[in-house]
Amino acid sequence: MMSIKNSILLLAAVFFISSCNSPSTEENTPLVTEAISDPLPSWNDGASKQSIIDFIEATTTEGSSEYVAVGDRIATFDNDGNLWSEQPYYFQLQFAFDRVKELASEHPDWSGDPLMAAAIGGDVEKVFSFGEHGLIKIVMASHSGMTEEEFNEVVLNWINTARHPKTNLLYKEMVYQPMLEVLDYFRANGFKTFIVSGGGIDFMRPWSEEVYGIPSEQVIGSSIKSKFELVDGKGTIIKLPELDFIDDKEGKPVGIHQYIGKRPIAAFGNSDGDLQMLQYADGSPGRSLQVYVHHTDAEREFAYDRGSPIGGFDKGWDYATENGWTVVDMKNDWKKIFPKD
Amino acid sequence: MMSIKNSILLLAAVFFISSCNSPSTEENTPLVTEAISDPLPSWNDGASKQSIIDFIEATTTEGSSEYVAVGDRIATFDNDGNLWSEQPYYFQLQFAFDRVKELASEHPDWSGDPLMAAAIGGDVEKVFSFGEHGLIKIVMASHSGMTEEEFNEVVLNWINTARHPKTNLLYKEMVYQPMLEVLDYFRANGFKTFIVSGGGIDFMRPWSEEVYGIPSEQVIGSSIKSKFELVDGKGTIIKLPELDFIDDKEGKPVGIHQYIGKRPIAAFGNSDGDLQMLQYADGSPGRSLQVYVHHTDAEREFAYDRGSPIGGFDKGWDYATENGWTVVDMKNDWKKIFPKD
Repeated sequence: MMSIKNSILLLAAVFFISSCNSPSTEENTPLVTEAISDPLPSWNDGASKQSIIDFIEATTTEGSSEYVAVGDRIATFDNDGNLWSEQPYYFQLQFAFDRVKELASEHPDWSGDPLMAAAIGGDVEKVFSFGEHGLIKIVMASHSGMTEEEFNEVVLNWINTARHPKTNLLYKEMVYQPMLEVLDYFRANGFKTFIVSGGGIDFMRPWSEEVYGIPSEQVIGSSIKSKFELVDGKGTIIKLPELDFIDDKEGKPVGIHQYIGKRPIAAFGNSDGDLQMLQYADGSPGRSLQVYVHHTDAEREFAYDRGSPIGGFDKGWDYATENGWTVVDMKNDWKKIFPKD
Repeated sequence: MMSIKNSILLLAAVFFISSCNSPSTEENTPLVTEAISDPLPSWNDGASKQSIIDFIEATTTEGSSEYVAVGDRIATFDNDGNLWSEQPYYFQLQFAFDRVKELASEHPDWSGDPLMAAAIGGDVEKVFSFGEHGLIKIVMASHSGMTEEEFNEVVLNWINTARHPKTNLLYKEMVYQPMLEVLDYFRANGFKTFIVSGGGIDFMRPWSEEVYGIPSEQVIGSSIKSKFELVDGKGTIIKLPELDFIDDKEGKPVGIHQYIGKRPIAAFGNSDGDLQMLQYADGSPGRSLQVYVHHTDAEREFAYDRGSPIGGFDKGWDYATENGWTVVDMKNDWKKIFPKD
């Protein structure tokens, strides 16, 4: 039987791309009120924070030799592990499990299927033992066969009620306050902010505006196919149980080219799956910014990097070090992790 | 040998989707200065203009029962024949021919290939006689094998210099002034405007902002595949000679779902290739607007509809009539066609 660790690795081939220590939600230290002029109040002063501020000032100050026209101010952000947490496994996977449980009564045949029975019973380890094939089957069972509106409603219901097993926070509350400030800071300086995630595009879009201030058309992710047909005379999009595009690794720049059509000049990620996106931004002829978020805080969030089955950070870390990219140390660079901290 | 008419039909399967009368650029009647409050000064008063104004007022007036939140104000526009002309054949096809001529010296082997030799020699009828296969070959030869930046430069050079054989206008000057006003009017009322075209996405993006005020990330179109690789250590997107997505007919709502993730509430087109996009908007639970531009002006532009190999308007016209959609009569509804008229 395949271990959970090895099985999770296979997720990269599905929708959920890229060690868990025990998390904690203690620490609620009241923050010193920052000067209003500080665009990144949840960031401690230091090289990471300064690299972001320097980049914004260089590219947006008229007369600067590195000034960039507003239309070319494109910044891309990975989601899992970069804007919100991703442990003990991608949140979208929990959504898929919950969804399969909900649908079980409509599918009596599932009880005779060892994989689906394990998913319904919440036996995650057993589900992972079926490998990639099993995970694809669960994603398809939970994400297709509906209209786009029906799926949006299911996702919204989940994101507004489901809670993380360790923190008891809503999943949408497990977003990183310092990164929300980065998004605001970039937008206030004329940048368009995009999510570029290995996660499912249809899973993120219904709540990306509320949670991140990023409208659905600025969300890029992995996708399944869909078809158009008239249902009772009404034009309708129906989601199909067939993979379309995997937005991970080399897929990230390809997805950016497809959806945006411009090279980003700033890119933020946290794992090897983001390396090519950061290299793409790095290939910009002018000033660019590459930031890796390094999960170093076992106390307030999770600590993991090399060899982690989710959010593995090996090649990316080496490349970042060799090329002088910014590597954020969550424990030391961030005053708080989640907005409710 | 296949006729030009039949051959052009095959274009639908390539990049250029959707009877030419002799065009004319005469008529330069000076316009009466419109009241500043008229958002559509190049439109004659009438049912078409009023349907657009009524829609905007209903969906953007707070307190209206049909009010739509800003984030859901999505309007989609076909390009060829809806925002700019498309006769005697899609302008992108002329671009492809011109490009093949430019590249000929680098490809001495082409002279021995009857198809490529015909394209180089400008024998359009002969090129069409090779059918779909030949057109795909010419598109691939002219649109791939370059980085994205190289292709953008080639397109920009063409769009800023190439002139239409009949009007002698730059192709980018053959955009419809009344539709430019519609784009502005929608944006001034909180709508996001998107191009949704059967034409090539990479061909439109370099100039869509300048010509239409639509940024590249709001352009959806047919696409070829691309790959990412490090070239001399620099992250680079390279365009491949392989079709990816055909954004026509049922493909238009699918493309909208993929790129935008929201159902448009207003859609503008001119041919049967746009029918499904308009049906998709029509399926909106609230107020929506469907507009077809009917090419009725042989004098100032071109007149064509049923049975036209380019911009054929049969099923769409019938459906529009049966469902009470707006059908714009270019000859009678528009005071001018092109900005320079």
